[in-house]
Amino acid sequence: ARRGYPEAVLCEPKTPDQVAAIAAEVAAAGTPTLFTRVREDQVDAVLTALPDAHHDAVARLVAWPPQPPAPTGGLVVVLSAGTSDLAVAREAELTARHLGRATELVVDVGVAGLHRVLAQLDLLRSARVVVVAAGMDGALPSVVAGLVSCPVVAIPTSVGYGAAFGGVAPLLSMLNACSPGVAVVNIDNGYGGGHLAAQIAAG
Amino acid sequence: ARRGYPEAVLCEPKTPDQVAAIAAEVAAAGTPTLFTRVREDQVDAVLTALPDAHHDAVARLVAWPPQPPAPTGGLVVVLSAGTSDLAVAREAELTARHLGRATELVVDVGVAGLHRVLAQLDLLRSARVVVVAAGMDGALPSVVAGLVSCPVVAIPTSVGYGAAFGGVAPLLSMLNACSPGVAVVNIDNGYGGGHLAAQIAAG
Amino acid sequence: ARRGYPEAVLCEPKTPDQVAAIAAEVAAAGTPTLFTRVREDQVDAVLTALPDAHHDAVARLVAWPPQPPAPTGGLVVVLSAGTSDLAVAREAELTARHLGRATELVVDVGVAGLHRVLAQLDLLRSARVVVVAAGMDGALPSVVAGLVSCPVVAIPTSVGYGAAFGGVAPLLSMLNACSPGVAVVNIDNGYGGGHLAAQIAAG
Amino acid sequence: ARRGYPEAVLCEPKTPDQVAAIAAEVAAAGTPTLFTRVREDQVDAVLTALPDAHHDAVARLVAWPPQPPAPTGGLVVVLSAGTSDLAVAREAELTARHLGRATELVVDVGVAGLHRVLAQLDLLRSARVVVVAAGMDGALPSVVAGLVSCPVVAIPTSVGYGAAFGGVAPLLSMLNACSPGVAVVNIDNGYGGGHLAAQIAAG
Amino acid sequence: ARRGYPEAVLCEPKTPDQVAAIAAEVAAAGTPTLFTRVREDQVDAVLTALPDAHHDAVARLVAWPPQPPAPTGGLVVVLSAGTSDLAVAREAELTARHLGRATELVVDVGVAGLHRVLAQLDLLRSARVVVVAAGMDGALPSVVAGLVSCPVVAIPTSVGYGAAFGGVAPLLSMLNACSPGVAVVNIDNGYGGGHLAAQIAAG
Amino acid sequence: ARRGYPEAVLCEPKTPDQVAAIAAEVAAAGTPTLFTRVREDQVDAVLTALPDAHHDAVARLVAWPPQPPAPTGGLVVVLSAGTSDLAVAREAELTARHLGRATELVVDVGVAGLHRVLAQLDLLRSARVVVVAAGMDGALPSVVAGLVSCPVVAIPTSVGYGAAFGGVAPLLSMLNACSPGVAVVNIDNGYGGGHLAAQIAAG
Amino acid sequence: ARRGYPEAVLCEPKTPDQVAAIAAEVAAAGTPTLFTRVREDQVDAVLTALPDAHHDAVARLVAWPPQPPAPTGGLVVVLSAGTSDLAVAREAELTARHLGRATELVVDVGVAGLHRVLAQLDLLRSARVVVVAAGMDGALPSVVAGLVSCPVVAIPTSVGYGAAFGGVAPLLSMLNACSPGVAVVNIDNGYGGGHLAAQIAAG
Amino acid sequence: ARRGYPEAVLCEPKTPDQVAAIAAEVAAAGTPTLFTRVREDQVDAVLTALPDAHHDAVARLVAWPPQPPAPTGGLVVVLSAGTSDLAVAREAELTARHLGRATELVVDVGVAGLHRVLAQLDLLRSARVVVVAAGMDGALPSVVAGLVSCPVVAIPTSVGYGAAFGGVAPLLSMLNACSPGVAVVNIDNGYGGGHLAAQIAAG
Ligand SMILES: Nc1ncnc2c1ncn2[C@@H]1O[C@H](COP(=O)(O)O)[C@@H](O)[C@H]1O
Ligand SMILES: Nc1ncnc2c1ncn2[C@@H]1O[C@H](COP(=O)(O)O)[C@@H](O)[C@H]1O
Ligand SMILES: Nc1ncnc2c1ncn2[C@@H]1O[C@H](COP(=O)(O)O)[C@@H](O)[C@H]1O
Ligand SMILES: Nc1ncnc2c1ncn2[C@@H]1O[C@H](COP(=O)(O)O)[C@@H](O)[C@H]1O
Ligand SMILES: [Mg+2]
Ligand SMILES: [Mg+2]
Ligand SMILES: [Mg+2]
Ligand SMILES: [Mg+2]
Ligand SMILES: [Mg+2]
Ligand SMILES: [Mg+2]
Ligand SMILES: [Mg+2]
Ligand SMILES: [Mg+2]
Repeated sequence: ARRGYPEAVLCEPKTPDQVAAIAAEVAAAGTPTLFTRVREDQVDAVLTALPDAHHDAVARLVAWPPQPPAPTGGLVVVLSAGTSDLAVAREAELTARHLGRATELVVDVGVAGLHRVLAQLDLLRSARVVVVAAGMDGALPSVVAGLVSCPVVAIPTSVGYGAAFGGVAPLLSMLNACSPGVAVVNIDNGYGGGHLAAQIAAG
Repeated sequence: ARRGYPEAVLCEPKTPDQVAAIAAEVAAAGTPTLFTRVREDQVDAVLTALPDAHHDAVARLVAWPPQPPAPTGGLVVVLSAGTSDLAVAREAELTARHLGRATELVVDVGVAGLHRVLAQLDLLRSARVVVVAAGMDGALPSVVAGLVSCPVVAIPTSVGYGAAFGGVAPLLSMLNACSPGVAVVNIDNGYGGGHLAAQIAAG
Repeated sequence: ARRGYPEAVLCEPKTPDQVAAIAAEVAAAGTPTLFTRVREDQVDAVLTALPDAHHDAVARLVAWPPQPPAPTGGLVVVLSAGTSDLAVAREAELTARHLGRATELVVDVGVAGLHRVLAQLDLLRSARVVVVAAGMDGALPSVVAGLVSCPVVAIPTSVGYGAAFGGVAPLLSMLNACSPGVAVVNIDNGYGGGHLAAQIAAG
Repeated sequence: ARRGYPEAVLCEPKTPDQVAAIAAEVAAAGTPTLFTRVREDQVDAVLTALPDAHHDAVARLVAWPPQPPAPTGGLVVVLSAGTSDLAVAREAELTARHLGRATELVVDVGVAGLHRVLAQLDLLRSARVVVVAAGMDGALPSVVAGLVSCPVVAIPTSVGYGAAFGGVAPLLSMLNACSPGVAVVNIDNGYGGGHLAAQIAAG
Repeated sequence: ARRGYPEAVLCEPKTPDQVAAIAAEVAAAGTPTLFTRVREDQVDAVLTALPDAHHDAVARLVAWPPQPPAPTGGLVVVLSAGTSDLAVAREAELTARHLGRATELVVDVGVAGLHRVLAQLDLLRSARVVVVAAGMDGALPSVVAGLVSCPVVAIPTSVGYGAAFGGVAPLLSMLNACSPGVAVVNIDNGYGGGHLAAQIAAG
Repeated sequence: ARRGYPEAVLCEPKTPDQVAAIAAEVAAAGTPTLFTRVREDQVDAVLTALPDAHHDAVARLVAWPPQPPAPTGGLVVVLSAGTSDLAVAREAELTARHLGRATELVVDVGVAGLHRVLAQLDLLRSARVVVVAAGMDGALPSVVAGLVSCPVVAIPTSVGYGAAFGGVAPLLSMLNACSPGVAVVNIDNGYGGGHLAAQIAAG
Repeated sequence: ARRGYPEAVLCEPKTPDQVAAIAAEVAAAGTPTLFTRVREDQVDAVLTALPDAHHDAVARLVAWPPQPPAPTGGLVVVLSAGTSDLAVAREAELTARHLGRATELVVDVGVAGLHRVLAQLDLLRSARVVVVAAGMDGALPSVVAGLVSCPVVAIPTSVGYGAAFGGVAPLLSMLNACSPGVAVVNIDNGYGGGHLAAQIAAG
Repeated sequence: ARRGYPEAVLCEPKTPDQVAAIAAEVAAAGTPTLFTRVREDQVDAVLTALPDAHHDAVARLVAWPPQPPAPTGGLVVVLSAGTSDLAVAREAELTARHLGRATELVVDVGVAGLHRVLAQLDLLRSARVVVVAAGMDGALPSVVAGLVSCPVVAIPTSVGYGAAFGGVAPLLSMLNACSPGVAVVNIDNGYGGGHLAAQIAAG
């Protein structure tokens, strides 16, 4: 690809047959590709065409080739506010890694326990960009952006219920972050957040 | 009144004539009363009937009698996340005071500068209830509730623009606060937040 | 825990494996814990690690240790507007009890039959805080708050259909309660409502 | 008109010239007509063409001919939850009266003071239909419909602020009234509520 | 019941056990009752306790006693805009009938084929009240209300997809009907619409 | 212009200076141009640069050159549901005319008076495309599309109040029209509706 | 049918029995008919009554008679922005074809790869109307409408997740297209888009 | 400031007195500061305390010190989709410049005229980050992100009317951009977009 980044295929809305056909094209052309939001009934469709591809079940991601390139650019630090945000955080981390960045993932650092955030201050300040996945109140990016000088990529997650409205609550929090330097992507968009982070931390 | 608390009159949607008539009844009956959300063109209507009433222009509140009762119960600490949230925070503080509580007001302690929040930790932990007025991301109540054991009354404000949607963004944040113990009231409802805090801190 | 209250684990968005891991940590550390919104396929994950834990199927709650502490502080009265709101009301009641409060639960006291509300007046006025779970029009907290001097914790439920919008209708009603003293929490948030009530009724 | 009811002209979105032209047609044809939501800058446009018309400034209504017909059918009782809902309640009452019904208007009977509602029980039970105008939580129609056997016409008003969302909160409450027999009309639609009530109470 | 109308039990959000317990009470007390929105897994719970009850699968209604009373009052005409709105229309018709009214049901009279509406003009004008169930554009109540002098009860249905938003589109249409005399109830609320119609057409 | 249609300038969000600069360019280049949504304080900015331009105050449109071209293609019939929708309908008509179509405008043909719609049947059936501007319930396009075989361009207007939500109610109605053949454009977008109609009726 | 177009039956919200009954009527009367949004459990209901009907599983459409008429009028070009939008695009294409138009379908021409759009320029400019099915950002119709002089029928699809809100994001984009000449239909409404296109490209 | 970037003061929701007090503190402390969203009645409050500050009326920004620092890091290219988006685009550009970046601003490059976008390809590909301000359909960031490898900061603007909903339409488009690498900020948030861009293009 012109940009030097792998292609991506959003699998969820496609039929297994459509996914299989695309995977076959990928295999034929040898194009580095990330298959994202892979439903359980689609995994085989990809792995049949690309048997050595890497499947991460938590992140719902299949990457081919399975090994990420040697890392270049700055460090991408990914924070998962709660255990439940892990799937999205992991999708972001893997995406950034397959786009060529070094990454660190830290789980369960919500604002309800500030000390756990503050304990990561050195790691956070060593990053070229921080990615934060958070649901419910989506307060973590505001707090983190107040602590670091680099950009923060904020990924609202659909974790929560009731007035979380499937991620609308953290989405709005993040768009209204009172600290500057917060870049928002779509709800549950771990792929997009990881891609953006990799571009920010490039070369 | 049966509850022992002053009456309240929501002035904004009323005509000056309606407000004047109510103020005259208050004067005649001698009922302790808070006039809330008093528009500039309504202030005279109240003060004509109740010349010694106390008018706080920032809080848009007129209180009669002008002096609050001697405080009883626990301490009510009120935080204003930004300077722009002051009007709402002040309305909450005055309401709690006129309902008989001791109060402390701290301004400009947003999560973008965590150190300013942490600097208030002793005061916060001395409170029976903390009231937090915040707009934009509405992240402060989550952070504060993680630091104290007492209830936090969260008042979303309409400060902000765009996707703040007139206070919807902080309202949703607060309803989804990831720390327990957060009691939410209506957007810009300083009166309601102060009243609730006074009831919590009673006796 | 610093606050002296049990920890809580929101199980619904987690995998059974994640829940099992957390339950094992709880068992190892001996931390008093409430597992909330436990899905049927997660119950065993908790009970395997904590065999003597108490599981309340209606409230979808698992509590460990199984016995609540001896009650201190004021009385928490919980009202369920309809039979269908019982799950949420029960979650609130059990939470308050495991945080150390005495509780009373009254079911089926909707505003369509005012006499049933008025029949509870003595009980209501003996409470330090009243918790009200209601769906559909969410009118009960306004009525109750007009009858008592203590705070009312209002929990909107997702009971209803059509323009109830999964709890939005009662949520908005409660935020706009025409009686002061109403503290709103998230839709279906029995845990949060019970926790807040326990804090209000503390010592 | 075929239905035997006066025509109605919604003035607010029209230019004064358009209103004047319509009023001139009414005068020429002698058609009984209600001019509704008449802006201050439109009143003269109507009264110039119909000098003996009756203008009610509170209800923003101009009626011609000025005298309502002798009443037939059942009694229409109109309740205004707060003083601020009076304009809408009055528009409903006048409409029903000019459509030929006997009416009674009772102001300031919100659910925050249940005794004031219960004090009207005999009047309410003598009605063929009750009209209720209420803003904020919109709880009154549920309570009233639980007390009477006749239909209740519920008019949500835009009174309130913040999460009242210009009348959405009471609109949703009323659509989800837990007592059956509640007929909802548009926000602030005093004319429509009064018209519907007159049709229900006809003959 | 005080009102002389049967009780109603909203079954959908209840467990089969809760429904069974209520049905047993109904059987013991001999209270005429409508069980509404009965899920398939709840039907037996009702019929076990009340074996002679009448179950209408289309309307998802169980009525006991099975026979409606002899009709009194005026005629209730029910229109179903499309075949897909039939379930809601039938629920409204049966409710009105069990509350003691004579009813007529006409199916598939949408505004896309005006001649089919106009063909019912005599029937429509013989009604004391017309009930209209319609989804998608919800345009039928406006058209019908322009043709008759009696009230029209408008029931928006969730039939449609996309920007129908589960019934929001017809709900808003009906609230903004350009003909007066339209009484709106909740989306898919056949029970409520039939109950209201029965009250309007009473004695 | 490549398409052979005049350019259009959306004036409302621009400063008078920006509008004046654009008008000067138009004058210099001799480009046929429609200035749309021209605020009163912008009219002079246009007319100073283009003194012979045609200003239609109702439609808020300035056209240059002032004379539309000789009409080609099919007939565009424009319906205004109410008098209040006239500004939008007129903007659509003038746009279509300046793009080279013959037009007819019919005002005040809402569905509340079906006979007025039916009286236009011959004209409607002579059209190559019908444009319908309607607010409130937005029911007219459904009715018209059921009567004609040609496409119907539906323009929702912001006429109405309360639950009309500034045109959302008719917008949703029109998107869910139960007759096929309805093309929807933005709320109050008379320009867009007229442009689309001219393209449909071209050649 | 009066219009000379086939009838359409929206199957999704109907029971298989209702669909079977309608199919039997179609068979008896010999009416050309499109069965749209046919659920898998409804296909047999149609094919039993109309064994020679054509079933397109991708488009979820059953057409009878199976052969479209010989094409007349102008060319309808259908674009599918992504593979995932194919079902909707195909429904539109088949509908237009069965209404008597020649059609061309081009898949996977999103704005993320502009060169693929530009590669279709000759085809696009040969069309009498272009239909565009797109989800997510819905940006394609704006781009296409800027490249062609004929009308563009824009069909938002529910493809996407999170803040795509089931098609709301592309729906709003399309309603606000910055190029004129865009006709919007309901989310996922391939039938409606194809019907409108056929009418525009008629004769 | 710890980050080495100027402070920012959001002026719009503050009173002129509050702004004057803050400006005085800035003058006293000599802190580099950007005053954003400065209302006309607030400009003097700033300039009195900081007479040599630079006021940009289009961007509603006051910068002190008036000269930006010598640029370091990569190039920030700012695109304004339409003339009406200029205020926001200019606020972003000035912010980035005062944070120490070289900037280029290009106006009026909407997707309706793709050739104008393509004409900027060399400039776009020389950027370290591209900022795009766009209202209405918000389609430009998707198109631009497909053409460049660097991150795109997308700022939705409130330009538009009707279903643009004050910037919601472009906000949703941008969150759902079908090209990866799009970082979204709040509606009209030129300051935030410029700040984020400066951080991305740092060092
Ligand atoms: N600022 C306020 N916000 C919300 N509720 C208020 C406010 N001020 C007064 N109220 C409530 O509104 C009631 C008075 O309403 P009214 O009779 O219309 O003045 C009081 O009993 C208060 O509970
Ligand atoms: N289908 C229904 N839709 C709306 N309200 C209903 C319905 N069925 C019953 N109700 C109302 O809900 C009340 C019963 O609620 P519950 O006690 O929870 O069964 C009755 O008094 C009815 O007024
Ligand atoms: N997929 C569809 N989407 C929207 N409208 C449709 C669809 N299929 C059929 N229709 C319309 O719905 C009407 C049929 O509705 P029904 O009688 O309920 O099947 C037809 O006249 C069509 O105009
Ligand atoms: N135009 C703006 N939009 C969004 N946030 C801003 C804006 N201007 C300043 N801010 C942020 O708001 C904070 C200042 O808020 P305040 O103390 O209320 O002036 C700054 O630290 C900025 O991060
Ligand atoms: Mg920072
Ligand atoms: Mg706490
Ligand atoms: Mg009270
Ligand atoms: Mg009743
Ligand atoms: Mg009528
Ligand atoms: Mg047609
Ligand atoms: Mg074009
Ligand atoms: Mg790119």
